[in-house]
Amino acid sequence: MSVIVQKYGGTSVGSVERIEAVADKVISHCQRGEKVVVVVSAMSGETNRLIGLANEISDAPSAREMDVLVSTGEQVTIALLSMALQAKGQDARSYTGSQVRILTDTAHSKARIEEIDAHRMQQDLDAGRVVVVAGFQGVDEQGNITTLGRGGSDTTAVALAAALKADECQIYTDVDGVYTTDPRVVDSARRLTSITFEEMLEMASQGSKVLQIRSVEFAGKYNVPLRVLSSFQEGPGTLITLEDDGMEKPVVSGIAFNRDEAKLMIRGIPDQPGVAFKVLGPISAANIEVDVIVQNVAVDNSANITFTVHKNDVKKAEQILQQIAAELGAKEVATDSSIAKVSLVGVGMRSHAGVAAKMFESLANEAINIQLITTSEIKVTVVVDEKYLELAVRALHSAFEMDKEPQQEA
Amino acid sequence: MSVIVQKYGGTSVGSVERIEAVADKVISHCQRGEKVVVVVSAMSGETNRLIGLANEISDAPSAREMDVLVSTGEQVTIALLSMALQAKGQDARSYTGSQVRILTDTAHSKARIEEIDAHRMQQDLDAGRVVVVAGFQGVDEQGNITTLGRGGSDTTAVALAAALKADECQIYTDVDGVYTTDPRVVDSARRLTSITFEEMLEMASQGSKVLQIRSVEFAGKYNVPLRVLSSFQEGPGTLITLEDDGMEKPVVSGIAFNRDEAKLMIRGIPDQPGVAFKVLGPISAANIEVDVIVQNVAVDNSANITFTVHKNDVKKAEQILQQIAAELGAKEVATDSSIAKVSLVGVGMRSHAGVAAKMFESLANEAINIQLITTSEIKVTVVVDEKYLELAVRALHSAFEMDKEPQQEA
Repeated sequence: MSVIVQKYGGTSVGSVERIEAVADKVISHCQRGEKVVVVVSAMSGETNRLIGLANEISDAPSAREMDVLVSTGEQVTIALLSMALQAKGQDARSYTGSQVRILTDTAHSKARIEEIDAHRMQQDLDAGRVVVVAGFQGVDEQGNITTLGRGGSDTTAVALAAALKADECQIYTDVDGVYTTDPRVVDSARRLTSITFEEMLEMASQGSKVLQIRSVEFAGKYNVPLRVLSSFQEGPGTLITLEDDGMEKPVVSGIAFNRDEAKLMIRGIPDQPGVAFKVLGPISAANIEVDVIVQNVAVDNSANITFTVHKNDVKKAEQILQQIAAELGAKEVATDSSIAKVSLVGVGMRSHAGVAAKMFESLANEAINIQLITTSEIKVTVVVDEKYLELAVRALHSAFEMDKEPQQEA
Repeated sequence: MSVIVQKYGGTSVGSVERIEAVADKVISHCQRGEKVVVVVSAMSGETNRLIGLANEISDAPSAREMDVLVSTGEQVTIALLSMALQAKGQDARSYTGSQVRILTDTAHSKARIEEIDAHRMQQDLDAGRVVVVAGFQGVDEQGNITTLGRGGSDTTAVALAAALKADECQIYTDVDGVYTTDPRVVDSARRLTSITFEEMLEMASQGSKVLQIRSVEFAGKYNVPLRVLSSFQEGPGTLITLEDDGMEKPVVSGIAFNRDEAKLMIRGIPDQPGVAFKVLGPISAANIEVDVIVQNVAVDNSANITFTVHKNDVKKAEQILQQIAAELGAKEVATDSSIAKVSLVGVGMRSHAGVAAKMFESLANEAINIQLITTSEIKVTVVVDEKYLELAVRALHSAFEMDKEPQQEA
């Protein structure tokens, strides 16, 4: 008898009617003979309502009390869903994060799961009950309520699936799967039947916000098969899993992009050892996250360093950079906020040469200038002028024939 | 350094502004050098909102899930009040019923407290923190969330005060104390400086709904001095305590009344042993609570039994009574729903004869016919026609000079 963990987000449980629809979906799985654990978020809007109350009271509410407050959101949902299941004749029982014992560290509002006691859930499942667990929350050694941070319900679901050695962890959301790229940009974007954990991580970190990145890491680490499906329509969704022989292996699985970053350049730094650290150390010390980094050396032996940060941080980063430039005797600091980042992602790249070349050629054909390039084992990223973003994504989607189902390898 | 437990009800914490006012009040006590534990209810309207959601989903939601649901109401308040205290510079920490460990039995929605662990609260108090505890809720041995039933926050406060051996338990409410009788009926009703637990129990069970009756029983059992005060105005309120020598001892402390009951009569039952049990046994077996009971014997040796039940139960009780009358060969069954019950309450009655006689005289002076009389050690109760209720209460209040402060006994 297979065990599955299902997770329904805030929109999926946003009203009494939707909670009843979730109950129907859960029951249809029970009727297929599956044992089901359901993880739910707060009803949409509820978490923001609670945060609003806190902000009326304090500019800087304590993280401990904030966790006590917002964790009530999921607690309401678990009770209502359990009632809905019971009203439809399906035995069910709800658990808060503290009750099921999702033990975390004490980092309020961004706690990490340390241990889960699967014993009680297993007993309920064996007794024919659906187990309904509050997502996003846990408890520390001292019994304080903790939360895993926004989107943490996905992580709860994966962690429960790992603890229960579940056959599959199903994340129900408002999209019906993971696409080759954003369908709002490319009409012919295609839902992927499957994708590897590694690819999903690259897609997620590049802005495909289907799944919380931490939950994918977690699923990969414990090898929990993860499936993204729609709450609102039937369909197989996308399975996120380890590579295996039977799997489709296209060269490129997807195109990720984002326009949230800005570019900073420091040029004409007199040649000296450790220049990258001297430039990026203070940026990092200011808690600014740096993404793409490129360094090269000019004809006069002076160094140029270019990197990207989130647009919100560009002012602060520029100030720091001006100071550094003065200290190092650099010639120039420049920033550019109208850039976009485009990445090709695919485990197939490992065994296929020429992906990067083909990418550059496609962009050149459209007269799109590439400002920066970085590559990893399963990804090629370019930075281009923001105004070319859609054009670049469409050109690449077409060049790599991503609208077509890939051939199954023997 | 004295320890006090304060309880604020739903109206007192009904908005962000009111929560901040409660924080100010709590801080003023801290500044007087008191160690304060605060028990709070859900914000007014919140519990009903949650129950509304449950009722949309199920006609008969499980009691376990109902407790999971409604217990979130107080959890929100403890977090917000702790934040408000912290924002005003007062260290504070919140606890749910489960966290502070208010251990109860498993009777969901009407659980009874079995044990409280005062250790953690004591540590916080010693560290200069205000401890904020969710009222109305606890946890059973298996870790299930339980609730104590409506009004249970008073009981939580008293139980915490007992566990902490607190100097006083202060119940903040929307009235400024316990009155000689309902001020809406008698203009000159006077706030009592103090009242004994026994008197308060008689007053509460007779319809003075200032305090939950269970909390008064609890306070009496553990000898916790209980004070009723207003959240909205300053004042000493009313102290509920054991009798002691220095206390004011009026003959009559208060007048309680209610109009929620109906009277049932069965007349002309042929004389036989055990007739009271034969009549009242089946009523009780039908889970109908019987209040005043009077039995007498007529000239022809047939028995008459009269008793009162809640108006909601009168139809059901009458049906049962008709059956009994047929079985016993009684002559007549009659009911009367337009009655009212009026009680004089006072520990002073124990040592003062003539209270009942004076009561009957006062009512006779107003030509009010007394239908039933029962007495206990500290109470005389009469049942009269409902239309005379206000007149009776005013006449008694005046006859016993309850508008005047009593003389202090030496």
